[in-house]
Amino acid sequence: MRYEELTIEGRNAVLEAFRSGKTIDKLFIQDGCHDGPIQSITREARKKDVILTFVPKERLDQMSSSGKHQGVIAYGAAYEYAQVEDMLNLARERGEPPFLFLLDGIEDPHNLGAIIRTANLAGAHGVIIPKRRAAGLTAVVAKTSAGALNYTPVAKVTNLSSAIAELKERGIWFVCADMKGESMYRLNLTGPIGLVIGGEGKGAGKLVKENCDMTAAIPMKGEIDSLNASVAAGVLAYEIVRQRLAGGA
Amino acid sequence: MRYEELTIEGRNAVLEAFRSGKTIDKLFIQDGCHDGPIQSITREARKKDVILTFVPKERLDQMSSSGKHQGVIAYGAAYEYAQVEDMLNLARERGEPPFLFLLDGIEDPHNLGAIIRTANLAGAHGVIIPKRRAAGLTAVVAKTSAGALNYTPVAKVTNLSSAIAELKERGIWFVCADMKGESMYRLNLTGPIGLVIGGEGKGAGKLVKENCDMTAAIPMKGEIDSLNASVAAGVLAYEIVRQRLAGGA
Repeated sequence: MRYEELTIEGRNAVLEAFRSGKTIDKLFIQDGCHDGPIQSITREARKKDVILTFVPKERLDQMSSSGKHQGVIAYGAAYEYAQVEDMLNLARERGEPPFLFLLDGIEDPHNLGAIIRTANLAGAHGVIIPKRRAAGLTAVVAKTSAGALNYTPVAKVTNLSSAIAELKERGIWFVCADMKGESMYRLNLTGPIGLVIGGEGKGAGKLVKENCDMTAAIPMKGEIDSLNASVAAGVLAYEIVRQRLAGGA
Repeated sequence: MRYEELTIEGRNAVLEAFRSGKTIDKLFIQDGCHDGPIQSITREARKKDVILTFVPKERLDQMSSSGKHQGVIAYGAAYEYAQVEDMLNLARERGEPPFLFLLDGIEDPHNLGAIIRTANLAGAHGVIIPKRRAAGLTAVVAKTSAGALNYTPVAKVTNLSSAIAELKERGIWFVCADMKGESMYRLNLTGPIGLVIGGEGKGAGKLVKENCDMTAAIPMKGEIDSLNASVAAGVLAYEIVRQRLAGGA
């Protein structure tokens, strides 16, 4: 299992979890606790927009499995991030040309979860997300991924443009979802490919887009602007699946 | 505008809104109000799983635009449902073969909104939903539809199977999303078509599925079960779009 839900009990353990960058989804603190360590914990929680609830001691006692909660229990998640290299190895093992998803600033955890779910079912070898300005792997993401988070490798990179540049040298072509791009039905999307999906409403960043080899548009009729980000990712991913099955556009 | 957000103030107006079947999203009642009419209102609210919040009188006074809230304010939505006939007329006006979405028990309002959004952009002429066991058109649906609810007609029918039977006599073919169906790439999805999408996790009902002419599967690799319902609807809808643009499978 790459993904694991955690219950963290006690002041030092919770503070350490925050400081080591673990994802904390919910924090419960005993009513009336306001001492130094508790204040440090609530400060960390506010910094990270963690949902904080004050509850009576009895409630914490019930929730506790160690019996040593010291007035604080956190629910969190640990995820063992993959390396991009793992994804290329996975493709090699399966004897398939690499198929990667790169997400440039997906902020809604429901969308992130749904996209990881799609990546798994479309047979992609991994999902690459940036370290900043993006949803992390929380319990909501795990839930909406419907289990895919345990199977499809997710890597976090500091700079998406550099990751693209390096992967291009390894022979991977990059196609960026872009409403102003070429119709996806007219592009050749077979071969080693990285599909770049931009954030909700904003699309991919300028530098990321410029680093891609192609831009692909989903043909749109209708009166409104754009598809939901996870739907758009699904439609584009399955055009790649279709072309791979058919052996070309 | 087919869709409109409403603020309903006063006991009779709110009770009447409930009884006439308007969609109420949120209900605010003044702290300490427990008389007969208020009890009737809270009973209706509980029946319909409406979020109910008790607030101080000052808060209601601030929220009120009429100044006559009588201790109760409801936020709701009014949507002018379309008729299935309107959708067929729309197709005729545009000189296109009809393309309809039928949703059999989509319960998550985010999925419903995303599917209406997809229907609009894929050029469908309408979305048909059943009266029971399905999400209604709430503020969440309107928001996630990204405005599509104002353009794409949505009709509510008592019985989805009967609606399919009637539309089949009008020359429309029905394809039901089904994981055990034929690969969508091998089906001919051109011509007048109704795309049937089942609810999250359960798929379409037995009778609905039997009434369809074809079942279509999205090819799946990976370790998990199924795509998110709105992603699956998007992938299937765009296979129809692709085939219509190309003039066949």
